[in-house]
Amino acid sequence: MPLITNFSLLDKLIHMSEAREGLSVFFEPSSVAVIGASHEHEKLGRVVLENFLHGGFRGRVYPVNPNPVPIDGIGVYQSVKRLPEKVDLAVIVTPANTVPQLLKECADAGIRHVVVVSSGFSETGKAGKELEDECRKIAEKNKMFVIGPNCLGVYDSSSRVDTLFLSRSRLGRPKDGGIAFISQSGAFGATMLDWMNDQDVGISKFVSYGNGIGVNEADLLEFLADDPHTKVIASYIEGVKSDGRRFMEAARKASKKKPVIILKGGKTEKGTAAVASHTGSIAGSARVYSAAFKQSGVIEVSDWTELFDIARAFASQPLPLGGKLLIVTDAGGFGVMAADEADRRGIELKDPSERVTKALRASMPSYVSLHNPMDLTGDATTERYELALEEGIKEYDGIIAITIFQVPLLDKRIASSIAAIAKRHQKPVLCCAAGGEFTRSIVRELEGNGFPVYSTPERAVRVFDAMTRYAKASQ
Amino acid sequence: MPLITNFSLLDKLIHMSEAREGLSVFFEPSSVAVIGASHEHEKLGRVVLENFLHGGFRGRVYPVNPNPVPIDGIGVYQSVKRLPEKVDLAVIVTPANTVPQLLKECADAGIRHVVVVSSGFSETGKAGKELEDECRKIAEKNKMFVIGPNCLGVYDSSSRVDTLFLSRSRLGRPKDGGIAFISQSGAFGATMLDWMNDQDVGISKFVSYGNGIGVNEADLLEFLADDPHTKVIASYIEGVKSDGRRFMEAARKASKKKPVIILKGGKTEKGTAAVASHTGSIAGSARVYSAAFKQSGVIEVSDWTELFDIARAFASQPLPLGGKLLIVTDAGGFGVMAADEADRRGIELKDPSERVTKALRASMPSYVSLHNPMDLTGDATTERYELALEEGIKEYDGIIAITIFQVPLLDKRIASSIAAIAKRHQKPVLCCAAGGEFTRSIVRELEGNGFPVYSTPERAVRVFDAMTRYAKASQ
Repeated sequence: MPLITNFSLLDKLIHMSEAREGLSVFFEPSSVAVIGASHEHEKLGRVVLENFLHGGFRGRVYPVNPNPVPIDGIGVYQSVKRLPEKVDLAVIVTPANTVPQLLKECADAGIRHVVVVSSGFSETGKAGKELEDECRKIAEKNKMFVIGPNCLGVYDSSSRVDTLFLSRSRLGRPKDGGIAFISQSGAFGATMLDWMNDQDVGISKFVSYGNGIGVNEADLLEFLADDPHTKVIASYIEGVKSDGRRFMEAARKASKKKPVIILKGGKTEKGTAAVASHTGSIAGSARVYSAAFKQSGVIEVSDWTELFDIARAFASQPLPLGGKLLIVTDAGGFGVMAADEADRRGIELKDPSERVTKALRASMPSYVSLHNPMDLTGDATTERYELALEEGIKEYDGIIAITIFQVPLLDKRIASSIAAIAKRHQKPVLCCAAGGEFTRSIVRELEGNGFPVYSTPERAVRVFDAMTRYAKASQ
Repeated sequence: MPLITNFSLLDKLIHMSEAREGLSVFFEPSSVAVIGASHEHEKLGRVVLENFLHGGFRGRVYPVNPNPVPIDGIGVYQSVKRLPEKVDLAVIVTPANTVPQLLKECADAGIRHVVVVSSGFSETGKAGKELEDECRKIAEKNKMFVIGPNCLGVYDSSSRVDTLFLSRSRLGRPKDGGIAFISQSGAFGATMLDWMNDQDVGISKFVSYGNGIGVNEADLLEFLADDPHTKVIASYIEGVKSDGRRFMEAARKASKKKPVIILKGGKTEKGTAAVASHTGSIAGSARVYSAAFKQSGVIEVSDWTELFDIARAFASQPLPLGGKLLIVTDAGGFGVMAADEADRRGIELKDPSERVTKALRASMPSYVSLHNPMDLTGDATTERYELALEEGIKEYDGIIAITIFQVPLLDKRIASSIAAIAKRHQKPVLCCAAGGEFTRSIVRELEGNGFPVYSTPERAVRVFDAMTRYAKASQ
């Protein structure tokens, strides 16, 4: 008996390590076949082909289509069986009913990694479910790694693997960065990628796995936990496709290495019903999920802005060593809102020490309020902020700098000042500002220097809270 | 006894009607004196003068400064006593310690309306408090209407009264519109105005009243309730300056005429402490305030995005006649999030009737999900939305149209389609979209047609909830 158990364990370990190795091919294939590469410009298969041809991908690309007329002068292969080499990755962009046969052909051609973009499977009802089951069996029998179906697939900002069938004119691709983003929902993923690109937020890897018949969230968590490009994992899931225990184990292990932030869709009765007709998942009880997330060290969020608010901070800021927060503001009202949110979250706002108060009092006008929030008032200069931050950062674990730029004297030098002080002390600084073009120009400077800027004080405080909790849990 | 009571009541009524009449002068003065108009370009008094001279104000403007050298060729008066006419409004932009004397001079010159922009009063401590009390006494003795001190004062988008001492390069002025915005906090008010201008959100009147020694939130609520330019009143308050009963009465009366939305700052212990050093208010218990708001029919919100999310909808959309909500989406994940939020708020999402389902099934692909949320899926066209909205709007009180534009086929004609359908049925339609430049270009079309677009489904649902509750309460 012990022998068998050991063998089985060994087998499991080999399988897990293989799975992890296996996933890396999706992000760094040397060669790709685009099955369903279309001769027509608007078709999804054409968009995917063009992503690989013109999006910066450095590997070899083979269009596959029963019609062998060249596309843009590039030779078309009628089947994967006729490809001149055994490619690393196939992307299937064809009608649902053709997919089982194409998967078989991939297996026959020795292709073990496939992204199935096509929809029309379990999300559409019984017939689709049967088709999906057929695909699953083929994949399992041939030990294939499948992402999808009913998904956008993969985007890797450095290798430029890009199976997203949505045109760049509508969906911008984000730059390289530390956030990995997993989304069960394709359209949600697409929206977020476009938004990230617009906001200049960097990404390491993106995966939309849709109905998840093969690769699921647990596989991805395991893989991304060890991915050196990924500093933080952000995820939208509707229902866990993997075994619940395995998911929790993967989440727990990943959370020990880097923050895992999850937005769960389908937490209520109506939401759950909507999930069923969306990705064909069983959404499960919200409480069960929340408890599982908590136990696994996962940071659960309540909407997508929070998902990225927190992810951005983890990707760019050092972890706070404790929970002592100083709020510095030039707008009293925003300070009040921040203090309210801190209080609601149980974050104590200790006043600065007598030493700091004395040091600052000597060089600031009498009406500056040296409490916490520290209100530098509407005539604050960049120099006044520098003084406050330089003294404050010594005795706090992190700072929220509310920098309202509608007032007359604060200028864009604040961005480099904050950067210099934060860098010297290796402590997190989160910013808060909102407004029009002038404000936006300074926000860009701040964010260019790696400091996330939030439009409400509540959001900044929420982020600091999440960072503190994660730091504490992982000590 | 009855006689005396009646006299006193009559006196009160006369005073109230006077007060209301009185306030209108702030927004439509024929002539203005800027006391503290400066010869130096950067000074606050100079900015205020230039607002009146070059911002579109059509009345007469008199700079007042002890130094009679002309400013930009315009004659300067050494005191309000020497003005060639009895002006309607004086704006004081001078150091705090000069204000009591200047108020007296205004009284002597017969000026009854004064905006005191200057800070350095009760918000700075005991000496400032004494100065403030002195000003209050002078104002009361002379039956003056005073806005301030420690405030931005007044901005009126149609008369172009503009006492905001912040330069237009940093703080854009919003266009004419239906939202009146009252802010106790100046910097918060400034940030919001700049943001509104940037987002092309229109405003009727803006008042920042700071320490509120004269005109307070109750006066403003009474006045704005009857202001024909104002469709909805949005307000940030830290502590009520007026008598609590009077405030509730004013809020209750105003809420019957138009929606009153309030963001309360200083709801927690720490927030309350921050309020004291900000506008010198006593913030009071959060529960007491929330209960008072509820009793008065006020819509209380939890952050500034919610304040404007809701205000925008009231300013542009008809009230729903009931609570029946249909969610239409082309992105399943967003539909799920919307359904979750609806469920959390107790909004029932009834599926469309058999009649509607049949009508739509006939002209839509089989994979479209005709439930609620109705998922038109990622290949939805503008025509598919038109069909869904046209049929759906007949049997629902309002629609949330989640229009994700990263998908290939939905185009900008959706903006005019939604406008046409909503107009024909006179029911509210709220939109949800997020992303980069392509999305933004269509969002601008939608908002140009009067449909607010929210970046998360949760925000759109929250707004519908607020509209429904208000509509129900005011039936």
